[in-house]
Amino acid sequence: MNSKAGDAIAADQLAVSIQPGEDTELTTVVTGAGARIAPLAEADALIWTGSNPADFPAVLPERISWVQLPLAGIENWISRGVIDARRVWTSAAGAYADTVAEHALMLLLAGVRALPGCVRAQSWQSAAPLSKIGTLRGATVTVLGAGGIGRAMIPMLDAVGARVLAVNRRGLPVPGATRTVPVEDLDQVWPVTDHVVVAAPATPATRHLIGAAELTALKPTSWLVNVARGDLVDTDALVVALRAGTLAGAALDVTAPEPLPDGHPLWQEPRAVITPHIANPTTMLRRALAERVAENVSRRAAGRELLGRVDLSSGY
Amino acid sequence: MNSKAGDAIAADQLAVSIQPGEDTELTTVVTGAGARIAPLAEADALIWTGSNPADFPAVLPERISWVQLPLAGIENWISRGVIDARRVWTSAAGAYADTVAEHALMLLLAGVRALPGCVRAQSWQSAAPLSKIGTLRGATVTVLGAGGIGRAMIPMLDAVGARVLAVNRRGLPVPGATRTVPVEDLDQVWPVTDHVVVAAPATPATRHLIGAAELTALKPTSWLVNVARGDLVDTDALVVALRAGTLAGAALDVTAPEPLPDGHPLWQEPRAVITPHIANPTTMLRRALAERVAENVSRRAAGRELLGRVDLSSGY
Repeated sequence: MNSKAGDAIAADQLAVSIQPGEDTELTTVVTGAGARIAPLAEADALIWTGSNPADFPAVLPERISWVQLPLAGIENWISRGVIDARRVWTSAAGAYADTVAEHALMLLLAGVRALPGCVRAQSWQSAAPLSKIGTLRGATVTVLGAGGIGRAMIPMLDAVGARVLAVNRRGLPVPGATRTVPVEDLDQVWPVTDHVVVAAPATPATRHLIGAAELTALKPTSWLVNVARGDLVDTDALVVALRAGTLAGAALDVTAPEPLPDGHPLWQEPRAVITPHIANPTTMLRRALAERVAENVSRRAAGRELLGRVDLSSGY
Repeated sequence: MNSKAGDAIAADQLAVSIQPGEDTELTTVVTGAGARIAPLAEADALIWTGSNPADFPAVLPERISWVQLPLAGIENWISRGVIDARRVWTSAAGAYADTVAEHALMLLLAGVRALPGCVRAQSWQSAAPLSKIGTLRGATVTVLGAGGIGRAMIPMLDAVGARVLAVNRRGLPVPGATRTVPVEDLDQVWPVTDHVVVAAPATPATRHLIGAAELTALKPTSWLVNVARGDLVDTDALVVALRAGTLAGAALDVTAPEPLPDGHPLWQEPRAVITPHIANPTTMLRRALAERVAENVSRRAAGRELLGRVDLSSGY
């Protein structure tokens, strides 16, 4: 073996398998990060590019000590038992944060500034009752989940003059947020919340985090944005709340069920805006995944902490 | 007269008339800034709250040395000869910059991320071809006009990862812009422009600044946003360009003609988004005007330069 000094030795020795099938872009990225490509049986690490947990090998070679998955949300991989405690697993959590945050900002701004009604209108007068137009300037936006997406949103919301109230599991202060509240005190945030962005991971604990009580607690001028997972919002309760006008509207990139079936009441609801899970479009996903793989291969070779490491006890 | 020392003397002496009619909010603002309210015939300054230049008095008392108008765009007041060279005139230019900039950002984001098609869709599959989704991250946004609105947009665009190319009359560098180009070199910006925001004042020189040639020079993925005045864009050329797909779409808060008449081709054009001149809604206008009046009364009383001073030679 052709040994070199320092980090380069480790990178030289890291054998990475990319599965399933060939992937020239990721191959370039892995070798560019100093590792070498190896067959699965001889690899130390596996970069898995498939999105369906059912396609993942039932048994991995013992030698594989790290698996990189291509998705940010891996709750189905955990519930199916794919992710074990025998090795290190990393998701792409946070890798797509910028583009999802941009989409969330877009949905929130469009709702607050009454764009949906304007898009549907066919005349100047009917386009938008002026009274519906709001602003994010001076508004308090509660961001549920202060992972990559939530953190990426903070400077964006700051730039348009909004304050961020962050909600996370333990209430550890999020840099840039005006205030951080632990999720167990969620009921305390509603009196000071103007709008809500759901950006938390889907776990058994976060299912229906936004239900009938939370929707009722919102203001008639509030917009709800969900760019996380449909299950975090109780869809039936949302339909009721939108009809009753207890909130101004909901802009959803994710739904439950998903895809939202034809004829679902949300398709006809004027207060609802739906984008079909496109916050992280394929074109941007490839580029962001490549960057994450390059970073994590370098980190693994250097023995440093990996980004997006899955914590089975918290479920993401 | 109850004279005091320093600035307070001047403020004490500044007699301000608010016309037409009573305005308790502005009265509070003017007296709060240390001036006193006076009838028109005895006033040094006039705060005019009407939006129609036809309603403005044909002759003002000679004593009036300063007139504050409530609008940001005063091209009709100039063309009708209301604004004379006998006294100082100030518009509300820049006072509404934050809210208009927020609206422009919203329109641009919504276009780039394919929201209009999603809003019109009634099913998941039809909602948005994924290939149409773009991002502002890494994009170059050309902002025509680097006054209040353009400057207010720079930190917003920066926060979503876009670069700003500013275009103004003389090419004087705009802080925060990657590059500033004088309007006479406008044809040089198109090869490096991803999207365009029109935020320049309406003057004879800026009429149809965006015409057939400029629209053809844009990319098939480009969005055009206009939050300034409809006349800056050649509407007929825009309709042709949108049909031909030489640009991705146009999001317009202002149109020519305005209001856009029923049955106009833009109402049926899927690449067009129209909001009916609501970037600066009445609710926010009142608050912003009050702030501007307070600031300018204080400045006038202290003999300092006023904000939004009209320059008849440049036409705004």
